[in-house]
Amino acid sequence: MSGTSAEIDMEFVAPFIEAATNVLVTMAQIEPWVGTPHLKDPGESMGDVSGFIGLTGKQIKGSLAVSFTKPAILYVASHMLGEAIHELDETVADLVGEITNIITGGAKKMLVDKGYKFELSIPTTIIGQGHFITHKTKGSVVIVPLEIPEGKLFLELCFEK
Amino acid sequence: MSGTSAEIDMEFVAPFIEAATNVLVTMAQIEPWVGTPHLKDPGESMGDVSGFIGLTGKQIKGSLAVSFTKPAILYVASHMLGEAIHELDETVADLVGEITNIITGGAKKMLVDKGYKFELSIPTTIIGQGHFITHKTKGSVVIVPLEIPEGKLFLELCFEK
Repeated sequence: MSGTSAEIDMEFVAPFIEAATNVLVTMAQIEPWVGTPHLKDPGESMGDVSGFIGLTGKQIKGSLAVSFTKPAILYVASHMLGEAIHELDETVADLVGEITNIITGGAKKMLVDKGYKFELSIPTTIIGQGHFITHKTKGSVVIVPLEIPEGKLFLELCFEK
Repeated sequence: MSGTSAEIDMEFVAPFIEAATNVLVTMAQIEPWVGTPHLKDPGESMGDVSGFIGLTGKQIKGSLAVSFTKPAILYVASHMLGEAIHELDETVADLVGEITNIITGGAKKMLVDKGYKFELSIPTTIIGQGHFITHKTKGSVVIVPLEIPEGKLFLELCFEK
């Protein structure tokens, strides 16, 4: 069952979208197309490389995943690093961890002004073709699809209040 | 470069090993063989299904991954659930999230007595054949290999003090 944006807490989700767009525009000169946030379908597949970071706080806990298809991250990495990148190697894994960190840090700053306070864990990157992500939660899991010229990426935000 | 156990902060690592052994013994009646904890080699491959949880605290932050090969988790899941499990499906993903949560919760209790305080994020499970895990950290990444009759699992503990 996909949710509509009306069911989604956009006050919490929007800063992550804004921070992700900022990272792509400023670090890679890529303006992504932003799709409609929706509640994740069970079994909905994600990308080939994903960065994760845990969030913990008194009002909220959860995690952010930033998940890229292989063509999308190779395009982003090539733009960010200024050289053609062809493989999902340690350099790409490191970059995805950094992107995840910057997005979460950017969102965190915006959310402080709205009264949310949380701490961030260390970002982890997974490389694995067509992997699936699931969460052990009774809270919300929201997917924000983003599209860039060479492929797709997804923000996957899981949170409990 | 693999590290020896002498380089590893066993005060912090040992409670995770104890908690993981407890979970396997009490929930699945499986006594694992515990290998030597070592610093992770870059590119060292892990399993086919991994549970992750972020840790944040004043003295320490990091994450735990509990990574299983497919035969290992099918064996554990079949023992825990009391029926033959053949596929890496939602039930297995949920179980791996639960195992990760219980291990981290168990270790957390033991570490409080040693003066460590930290909060846990929501566990996430990745299913993806032969995926790689990397961490964006200047801290330690410690692997603890465990072996059970049908396969291997690994604790992967990343932390910065």
